[in-house]
Amino acid sequence: MLIHSAAQLVTIAGPPQRGKELGNLKIIPDGAVYIQGEKISAIATSAELCKQYHHAEKINASQKVVLPGFVDPHTHAVWAGDRAAEFELKLEGKTYLEILQAGGGILSTVRATREANLETLIDQTRSRLWRAFRHGSTTIEVKTGYGLETETELRILAAILALDDEGPWDLVPTFLGAHAIAPEFRGDPQGYTNLVCTEMLPALLDWWDKNGRGRPLPYVDVFCETGAFDLAQSQQILIRAKEMGFPLKIHADEFDNLGGARLAASMNAASADHLVTTSDEDITAIGLSDTVAVGLPGTPFGLAQKDYTPAQKILAAGGILALASDLNPGTTWCENLQISIALACRYMNITPAQAIAAATINAAAAVGLADKVGSLEPGKQADLLLLDIPDYRQLGYRYGTNLVDAVIKNGTVFQN
Amino acid sequence: MLIHSAAQLVTIAGPPQRGKELGNLKIIPDGAVYIQGEKISAIATSAELCKQYHHAEKINASQKVVLPGFVDPHTHAVWAGDRAAEFELKLEGKTYLEILQAGGGILSTVRATREANLETLIDQTRSRLWRAFRHGSTTIEVKTGYGLETETELRILAAILALDDEGPWDLVPTFLGAHAIAPEFRGDPQGYTNLVCTEMLPALLDWWDKNGRGRPLPYVDVFCETGAFDLAQSQQILIRAKEMGFPLKIHADEFDNLGGARLAASMNAASADHLVTTSDEDITAIGLSDTVAVGLPGTPFGLAQKDYTPAQKILAAGGILALASDLNPGTTWCENLQISIALACRYMNITPAQAIAAATINAAAAVGLADKVGSLEPGKQADLLLLDIPDYRQLGYRYGTNLVDAVIKNGTVFQN
Repeated sequence: MLIHSAAQLVTIAGPPQRGKELGNLKIIPDGAVYIQGEKISAIATSAELCKQYHHAEKINASQKVVLPGFVDPHTHAVWAGDRAAEFELKLEGKTYLEILQAGGGILSTVRATREANLETLIDQTRSRLWRAFRHGSTTIEVKTGYGLETETELRILAAILALDDEGPWDLVPTFLGAHAIAPEFRGDPQGYTNLVCTEMLPALLDWWDKNGRGRPLPYVDVFCETGAFDLAQSQQILIRAKEMGFPLKIHADEFDNLGGARLAASMNAASADHLVTTSDEDITAIGLSDTVAVGLPGTPFGLAQKDYTPAQKILAAGGILALASDLNPGTTWCENLQISIALACRYMNITPAQAIAAATINAAAAVGLADKVGSLEPGKQADLLLLDIPDYRQLGYRYGTNLVDAVIKNGTVFQN
Repeated sequence: MLIHSAAQLVTIAGPPQRGKELGNLKIIPDGAVYIQGEKISAIATSAELCKQYHHAEKINASQKVVLPGFVDPHTHAVWAGDRAAEFELKLEGKTYLEILQAGGGILSTVRATREANLETLIDQTRSRLWRAFRHGSTTIEVKTGYGLETETELRILAAILALDDEGPWDLVPTFLGAHAIAPEFRGDPQGYTNLVCTEMLPALLDWWDKNGRGRPLPYVDVFCETGAFDLAQSQQILIRAKEMGFPLKIHADEFDNLGGARLAASMNAASADHLVTTSDEDITAIGLSDTVAVGLPGTPFGLAQKDYTPAQKILAAGGILALASDLNPGTTWCENLQISIALACRYMNITPAQAIAAATINAAAAVGLADKVGSLEPGKQADLLLLDIPDYRQLGYRYGTNLVDAVIKNGTVFQN
């Protein structure tokens, strides 16, 4: 299959983009991509490839931008129920306590998720994944974390693997048993931390051995934050996970600067996510490391908060910056990564070119897949987007609608 | 045609909703709508209407919210070209002067629009209107204003009328010759004001007489703002327009409080739009009047500014609050009114119920059509939305994707 005559073929060829190098899109005007099976076989100008592959099935991308599929490296896409009533209560001025008393907050999602069987979890998540996919996310990280006890956490993981098998997307599973303190351990975070280390992680390894079908081990993630896991507890969980061979991620500095980003860098975690209140010292540590700094602008937006990830500081420190949606039922129910790009331009002060690289090649690095997806290069998966715009800069400038005309995943075309 | 089994039939029956009454959605659970031709004929529970109209063609809306079509009462949808390059320059830290020197700013859109013929204007606007329509806007106000000289302003108006004839939507035309000071009158706003009054408005009346085909006269609008038209100039234009029989609108207090809102109230304008910096005194004047206060949250969002229309103050003053997109190429290119609802919840501190009423019945009042559209009542136009959500509160809570499953316009179904 030959996609030709793209107004701009945005290749983003090369390795993840560090620091001020971010935003080098390596655009081929009037570009073409030749796809063989599930892989990209050749990239060049239309003139070259149309001559070479004149018998191929052709897709005319004139007036369109062709881009690598987005990689969304941070979602909590599996949950049951919704929190629409809680959203309304907040806007009516109800306090946090009143909302808790009305049954709101993360534990209401935990309750609904624990009650949902595997089929229900799969059903409710499926429509969200299709929405994300139709908006261009071809690879999506999905976390557990609304179970907070072993059985439900593993059921969520089973839902992720089942949905990965079922859909055209690639899902990257992450185990986030340490998302919040389980209600059974209220007031005893250390007790729950110990449970994660001594019961959940071994159970996970055992479960994966039986159900993982040879896939690489999932990420293990922890929410390092006031009210969740402090730095020592986060470290305890990550050290145990690393000893067992799991690759690592962390939620750090969303509200308070506890040192989670520095911890992630020191442990060579794949990513440290949120990084809103990160100190300059911790930004320096992240900048010097290979740990990807993942900005989640949908979260402060969803909460109408004013502080966003300080992208320019992270770039000045030489960090690898990525973007993700943080899709979840409490703070930001939005499946559209184009919105993250629009928010990042306005509130993280990066350009459309930087945001696009952050949502593709750098996001791929955040889930350890920079050698397979995130750019258009021969040998990579044929994951591409045809955008209904003639100039990549319309991403970010325009917002709130779906600019994706077609998604190509592993060489298969999904027309919007 | 019978639409039945709606999880929530959100009728918003009754007149525009003033002050703290805003948000009375009058929901019928398991509701049904019977449509005859282009009009709503009956509204009741599914049990009642399924019995009465059992032979009708049926649409099952189970698990769905049914809502009146959105009315977008403030757009600048007709323009040529784009300002994506300018958006990038701003994010790279270029100053206003540097952007102007690079050919940016509103006058770059004026230049491109003057150069575009009628067919080009229609072509470029059509795709934007379809986007708005697919996201639920069934009635859309559209302004001229990128011509700034008589011929182009009338050509834009011709494009609006042609697109109104062509599409399923209803377009409400507004003449905004006084959108900015024309480049030919740089440094002489009074000269341009005089031109609007002595040449443009008479030419408009004459043109309408020949081309309006019996439609009611269009609105006349003016941008009352520092750097555009001061209060006296705005008044001069609106008085002249009113003498000639035109209904009125105003852009007021977007950046500076010049008194435009009070002027609009005193002249019984249909609406005063933006109202970000409006003084308490002017809010009181608006609150006591029948002039609709139109909030445009996409504009501060698009510009990443922190101040939004003070909705709660307007409601406390008894005002009629509406929402609009402000779709335009400079500050907010977003056709999706659901985003305005999501922004209004977060940044204007109103509930989903209030935002929905503001985007339907009150928005209809802002364009003088509250007797025809904006609610689901027998005798009104059959303009309805089927939303892919079971609870109206998911509008606003969820954001960034299209929750509209189908648009019904004048009784015709458009499936997304």
